[in-house]
Amino acid sequence: MTNKNHKLWGGRFESGLEGWVEDFGASIHFDQRLAPYDIKGSIAHVTMLGETGIIPLADAKEIQEGLEELLKDWEKGDLVFTSDNEDIHMNIESLLTQKIGPVAGKLHTARSRNDQVATDMHLYVKDSLHQLLTKLRNLQQVLLKIAEREVETIMPGYTHLQHAQPISFGHHLLAYFQMFSRDYKRFEFNLEQADQSPLGAAALAGATFPINRHMTADLMGFASCYSNSLDAVSDRDFIIELLSNASLLMMHMSRFCEELIHWSSHEYQFIRLSDAFSTGSSIMPQKKNPDLAELIRGKTGRVYGNLFALLTVMKSLPLAYNKDLQEDKEGVFDTVDTIMVSMDVLAGMLESMTVNREKMLAGTQKDFSNATELADYLASKGIPFREAHEMVGKLILKAVQEDYYLQDIPFSLYQQVSPLIEKDIYQCLDSKRAVERRQSYGGTGFLEVKKQIELAKEALAQSEK
Amino acid sequence: MTNKNHKLWGGRFESGLEGWVEDFGASIHFDQRLAPYDIKGSIAHVTMLGETGIIPLADAKEIQEGLEELLKDWEKGDLVFTSDNEDIHMNIESLLTQKIGPVAGKLHTARSRNDQVATDMHLYVKDSLHQLLTKLRNLQQVLLKIAEREVETIMPGYTHLQHAQPISFGHHLLAYFQMFSRDYKRFEFNLEQADQSPLGAAALAGATFPINRHMTADLMGFASCYSNSLDAVSDRDFIIELLSNASLLMMHMSRFCEELIHWSSHEYQFIRLSDAFSTGSSIMPQKKNPDLAELIRGKTGRVYGNLFALLTVMKSLPLAYNKDLQEDKEGVFDTVDTIMVSMDVLAGMLESMTVNREKMLAGTQKDFSNATELADYLASKGIPFREAHEMVGKLILKAVQEDYYLQDIPFSLYQQVSPLIEKDIYQCLDSKRAVERRQSYGGTGFLEVKKQIELAKEALAQSEK
Amino acid sequence: MTNKNHKLWGGRFESGLEGWVEDFGASIHFDQRLAPYDIKGSIAHVTMLGETGIIPLADAKEIQEGLEELLKDWEKGDLVFTSDNEDIHMNIESLLTQKIGPVAGKLHTARSRNDQVATDMHLYVKDSLHQLLTKLRNLQQVLLKIAEREVETIMPGYTHLQHAQPISFGHHLLAYFQMFSRDYKRFEFNLEQADQSPLGAAALAGATFPINRHMTADLMGFASCYSNSLDAVSDRDFIIELLSNASLLMMHMSRFCEELIHWSSHEYQFIRLSDAFSTGSSIMPQKKNPDLAELIRGKTGRVYGNLFALLTVMKSLPLAYNKDLQEDKEGVFDTVDTIMVSMDVLAGMLESMTVNREKMLAGTQKDFSNATELADYLASKGIPFREAHEMVGKLILKAVQEDYYLQDIPFSLYQQVSPLIEKDIYQCLDSKRAVERRQSYGGTGFLEVKKQIELAKEALAQSEK
Amino acid sequence: MTNKNHKLWGGRFESGLEGWVEDFGASIHFDQRLAPYDIKGSIAHVTMLGETGIIPLADAKEIQEGLEELLKDWEKGDLVFTSDNEDIHMNIESLLTQKIGPVAGKLHTARSRNDQVATDMHLYVKDSLHQLLTKLRNLQQVLLKIAEREVETIMPGYTHLQHAQPISFGHHLLAYFQMFSRDYKRFEFNLEQADQSPLGAAALAGATFPINRHMTADLMGFASCYSNSLDAVSDRDFIIELLSNASLLMMHMSRFCEELIHWSSHEYQFIRLSDAFSTGSSIMPQKKNPDLAELIRGKTGRVYGNLFALLTVMKSLPLAYNKDLQEDKEGVFDTVDTIMVSMDVLAGMLESMTVNREKMLAGTQKDFSNATELADYLASKGIPFREAHEMVGKLILKAVQEDYYLQDIPFSLYQQVSPLIEKDIYQCLDSKRAVERRQSYGGTGFLEVKKQIELAKEALAQSEK
Repeated sequence: MTNKNHKLWGGRFESGLEGWVEDFGASIHFDQRLAPYDIKGSIAHVTMLGETGIIPLADAKEIQEGLEELLKDWEKGDLVFTSDNEDIHMNIESLLTQKIGPVAGKLHTARSRNDQVATDMHLYVKDSLHQLLTKLRNLQQVLLKIAEREVETIMPGYTHLQHAQPISFGHHLLAYFQMFSRDYKRFEFNLEQADQSPLGAAALAGATFPINRHMTADLMGFASCYSNSLDAVSDRDFIIELLSNASLLMMHMSRFCEELIHWSSHEYQFIRLSDAFSTGSSIMPQKKNPDLAELIRGKTGRVYGNLFALLTVMKSLPLAYNKDLQEDKEGVFDTVDTIMVSMDVLAGMLESMTVNREKMLAGTQKDFSNATELADYLASKGIPFREAHEMVGKLILKAVQEDYYLQDIPFSLYQQVSPLIEKDIYQCLDSKRAVERRQSYGGTGFLEVKKQIELAKEALAQSEK
Repeated sequence: MTNKNHKLWGGRFESGLEGWVEDFGASIHFDQRLAPYDIKGSIAHVTMLGETGIIPLADAKEIQEGLEELLKDWEKGDLVFTSDNEDIHMNIESLLTQKIGPVAGKLHTARSRNDQVATDMHLYVKDSLHQLLTKLRNLQQVLLKIAEREVETIMPGYTHLQHAQPISFGHHLLAYFQMFSRDYKRFEFNLEQADQSPLGAAALAGATFPINRHMTADLMGFASCYSNSLDAVSDRDFIIELLSNASLLMMHMSRFCEELIHWSSHEYQFIRLSDAFSTGSSIMPQKKNPDLAELIRGKTGRVYGNLFALLTVMKSLPLAYNKDLQEDKEGVFDTVDTIMVSMDVLAGMLESMTVNREKMLAGTQKDFSNATELADYLASKGIPFREAHEMVGKLILKAVQEDYYLQDIPFSLYQQVSPLIEKDIYQCLDSKRAVERRQSYGGTGFLEVKKQIELAKEALAQSEK
Repeated sequence: MTNKNHKLWGGRFESGLEGWVEDFGASIHFDQRLAPYDIKGSIAHVTMLGETGIIPLADAKEIQEGLEELLKDWEKGDLVFTSDNEDIHMNIESLLTQKIGPVAGKLHTARSRNDQVATDMHLYVKDSLHQLLTKLRNLQQVLLKIAEREVETIMPGYTHLQHAQPISFGHHLLAYFQMFSRDYKRFEFNLEQADQSPLGAAALAGATFPINRHMTADLMGFASCYSNSLDAVSDRDFIIELLSNASLLMMHMSRFCEELIHWSSHEYQFIRLSDAFSTGSSIMPQKKNPDLAELIRGKTGRVYGNLFALLTVMKSLPLAYNKDLQEDKEGVFDTVDTIMVSMDVLAGMLESMTVNREKMLAGTQKDFSNATELADYLASKGIPFREAHEMVGKLILKAVQEDYYLQDIPFSLYQQVSPLIEKDIYQCLDSKRAVERRQSYGGTGFLEVKKQIELAKEALAQSEK
Repeated sequence: MTNKNHKLWGGRFESGLEGWVEDFGASIHFDQRLAPYDIKGSIAHVTMLGETGIIPLADAKEIQEGLEELLKDWEKGDLVFTSDNEDIHMNIESLLTQKIGPVAGKLHTARSRNDQVATDMHLYVKDSLHQLLTKLRNLQQVLLKIAEREVETIMPGYTHLQHAQPISFGHHLLAYFQMFSRDYKRFEFNLEQADQSPLGAAALAGATFPINRHMTADLMGFASCYSNSLDAVSDRDFIIELLSNASLLMMHMSRFCEELIHWSSHEYQFIRLSDAFSTGSSIMPQKKNPDLAELIRGKTGRVYGNLFALLTVMKSLPLAYNKDLQEDKEGVFDTVDTIMVSMDVLAGMLESMTVNREKMLAGTQKDFSNATELADYLASKGIPFREAHEMVGKLILKAVQEDYYLQDIPFSLYQQVSPLIEKDIYQCLDSKRAVERRQSYGGTGFLEVKKQIELAKEALAQSEK
């Protein structure tokens, strides 16, 4: 099946790889995705080869035009790759030779597959990061819009999944906005770190030809060049950074989806996902399942797994290039695809969900999340906080046993608890007031939340300039 | 694009999923691999439905025949799946309906996709384990054959990658035989654990129809049934066990490949990989790279990653079925494929490699790995071991500084070291003798290694009965 | 601080390690935990040395007695270890020498620290597994007792965290019983795999002395000996198996704890944890936090992490012993400690919790989890299931919009839906009946659950014989 | 043992935790390490409480002085923590109360343990990052010094662990310099991200008191405040970033250590580790083991494991504080300790090792790493590169079979290969010339390496300003 003569490295070999063994080593079934980056990198390389006179300008021109045609073919979906050519580089070379004849061979002057594949991956990662940043920004915009709408929606705030203190639902959503802001910064930093061209490192030691690495870097849009050729061909930090940042992002989304799943459950009924973002059951007609939120949560696993896969690959690997490095691709492709669509799905789910404000509010009216308010009230009357805390604890123990809430306690009983308690106690137990009171910077008070929304909007506006 | 009416669960819904969102939730692009298992499980199910009278026998027959035709179509590669039908179950149902009409609908009596997909995965895992065991046995056979051939090949034994004591190369290979023996036992145990049918658990709570779960289990070749329906639909232990056992196997292979890479390096030259299992370089004509060994070593990463992915998915998941569980598939498919071919490649590499016995032996002649022999010799003359150890250490320090070996030291000098040293000292420093002396059970002495090879052969023979 | 002369291997060295560097390499701060195993292994070894005449019987006796005294000292907490002696082996040797003088040195005949530490770890792991099995059995007993008590407690069964079908709470608990049964089998298998003695493998190649490895194995209670000396000193599979089995166990406990946290939340109120297994808040007097359940859930992380750590350590490690292997200990110590106490805490939490049967039942009365019953009812009247499913779906859509449940629909309306519907429809919508109907093997029907409890009891009773 | 009255949250509780259960929940055995940060945070908090008039200035003063005394006690090692007080916060409160009496209670106004522990961890992480950066810079300085010394040392450059092309040893070392430069940038970015104060978020919702969060942030040296209180108490990104950056650093060190282990092996003999950074064997007197390099390599496992542990903990955790978050500490403490000492040990190993320049050079003289030179030579004579590559491949195949090297081929034979070959061919095969020729930016040519060293020095100098 496989014609050994295709191989670029056959001279030293008496017999070739068998087909099934060759398939094991081949990467074209997944690295074909690098085609546009491979072609763009080659265009930059051949342009430089021509400009520096390493190959005749006319040859460079011819090769460049051939590559540009290939790029157009690829855009039209017309490129056909074969596993006879084990990887994307050899496929492109072969297609180019078909198009322009043996002059194509000059493209490979002063370049090795080691620096070529590193270049492709840098271009892919940079491109992906740009797309990721756009989608992440979109998700943040959606979140901000909903947060703004829901500033005055009151819901139970949880710690230990227990009702703790009432909060603004908008405030709750802004917590995720902040997480995504950090994710954004991390991806931006990732982009900076990845913005170096390895091209020209050749196999591992640099080139003997008078190449101009800064020129190719410029042509491909890189900010700078790797300053060590061994490092250039063996570095995969920029991919691990992406996987690690993606793991943090998925972790945040898994937390959010966990909450969406809770909130849309029978027990909470805080939100209803739209039909467009739910599924049913083939057996149980009543089911409206938050499948997509579950799937995002579940996909956290694969993203973590991809990170650990590459960390494992890189552990203890001597310099410079080793074939193990071929394992850097599938995981990052899968990760980028996963987080891209997850962000879109999450944004869509949020935008289309219905918020049940009554249920949320009710959750703060038939619970004990106003206990802190009562304790604070007592403390404000001069009772030491520890003592107040103890008094409220006992009141609640009794209330739980007899099934009523603090706001149900008659005034006469409150006065038995302490004659310092006045009629305004009932106001103080109101959850809206409890929210309003928390006006410290970053707190849940409505005014403060509104202020934070304005600051967030400004930050987004600024970053878009 | 997608016709909402296809969905089995549409009644409660006013609007449907958009195409791209639906794609996110769809699994047909990877779970189509379960087609034969899905059909076989359905055949068992419908047979039981007929036998128990839950559906008319004639209907059961018709459905069964339809399914058997589908199976044949699948074997011929004629089944076409569409993403309109989100998963393999709905695709098969749709194909069956096309073939036999609406009676196909009766197949779904007393079954849910929750128990159906669990059944498919059990069948897939069992089938994969059988294949894995065969390939692993083959790898062991290859290893044993080579070990037998190389019993009397002497090589340096290493600790800390330093020459420690000379050993038999056959003995070294048998260490891997033992690791693979443990892997074999683990996969066998995995098979036992996976040998339970979840079919009949329905959505989560069992069926109201008088189904016979033991009958379907028998028909599918399962040893028993899950005895709890919630557990049956939510258990993924058997997959995690496979991933975990695969991680151990890959770890062993990564160690072996690391050694093959060392041994075929310029510095060692202990082995030469055959051309059929090496590749070259497009730039460097001399290169003969152990790419495949590197690739196996590198693929350890993805197998570990797949294990951690599923452990992450399962963490904190409430009962019973959650959509997160859909993430159980791609990782195990990838893992099974990876270890299957890795075992074949490793076996091929071993079978076709050339062993350079002279280089291996030479490695034990120009080194200090006979230092223990000298210390033992001194100890046998009555010098306390600690003192003997110290004396040898000092001799070596000098030898290293002046660049000679213990066997190069003239007898007169040995007598200065201790008058107890006799002429037979030079015999004792011979690496062959050093190997021969280690006749303790499991030791590297030739006779002992041969004994262990016989025991290994017997064990393999017995297991094949 | 450190006296270089203490080192057993100083002869070849001109200068020694500096203190802080030596501390980096030392393990006594964590491997002191191996003291009793180290002593027991030494007792077996010296007994064999005496029996085989490798050392004089009288010396063997003296050493053995010294070791037994050390063991008693250790039991009394009287052994003091110093970091001058880098590891537990050298500490014990030094303590023995203090006790019985230089004859102690003979203990180290035909043994290396490589096989010694492997022996210690096998003894530790076996001992730990025995303890784990006991604790796990206890947890299962507790679970079974509660399941038996709660067979007829009806609760909502969940899929996708949505109410799916009503189930027996006892049945739900038995799902965990089954998970723990698999864990139990895995630990038992682990024990079998670990039950091999590495002692006598010496540094890597076996011993030159006529040692009797089977004798030492017997004396230490091992079922057999490693049959390859290189494998014996470099194998850590038995530890990875433990870590992997522990990861599965923690995963199961994390699922259970997640549910306990849900159930004790304000929204569910299905259970109340006892005060003895809850904590409060220093600020919020009402809080009763399921801290311990959260902590078990959280500790899943460290157990997974320990597994991944050792898999990483072992990846690509050449034979035989490498210092990296010292990293096998802390993770497994931490894992064993973590799962031991987690099982006890979980058992205690379960035993002491209060089940709120009314709330659980109520959850099945004001929901749509009887939708399947209605669809089944319609199907039993001859309406094709898909059509019945659709009809029920539409009824529910309306009911949700107008805020009532299926059992609230007047009979006249049901007859409009289909004249086939009779008065017995209301019985059919009752959740108790829904549970009772699911009598398939492993289903949630009360009788079936009771049967499974009997089978579980028998299984436990049998394993205890 | 435990006096329930100590608990800050006892009012609602009828019975308390049992001792062993309480121990499970306690953190004082590891979080006592946060003592100085906890005290410093409290000093800032109480200063603000006084300045804003929330508590009387005199009380604030008294508390502050008490805290400063505690800090001094701690510095002297005089603070004694007890497990009666479950965590560091309660221990410090208790010690403060012992020192200054009940006024201590006022410290806890407008603060919760949720924001307090988050503050402690931020202070710890920032402090650790500063120390890490210093140690990393030191390691880079050491590396640069050695690289400069070894610019003209020629060694084989490897790909696939095969000799590829000769390179400068200084150049090889600089590859690691570059990796550590990226690590440095990542830790700097980590520091920026961690530089936010959570104090004042209180339990989850912010405070009702008129606190000034910016004031406490300033007092503690934070650049800014968290702008969302829920996020402030539940964010652990800054710790995961540290763990992730540490994993990359360990990965780099594992690669370096792997190479040091190779280089100090019998087969390479490129370097000799100093006695101060090697260990011996109790059995084999000749051994000089690179234990410390192995240990660093092995410790990569625990650092990866710690990262995965925390990612697992955080997955799917609902807002805001959950007890699972307590699991954030031990892993990061262990990681920081591990990488700190690993960097020092690696720097020490490098500084004290002896480079065997002759062996390195010899490695490039008796190998085929000059094959590219020959192919380039032929290409420079006008032979197309692919053809030249093929010709050299065949020459090498013959040479390998007959055991000689390219420089051993007589001129007459070269002329048979091609009459274009001239006498200067032997110069071209010289490894020094091969190195010198690679003068592309970042290449291994001596001049280029020297240039890169100057650039590196400038970069370090600048960053130190």
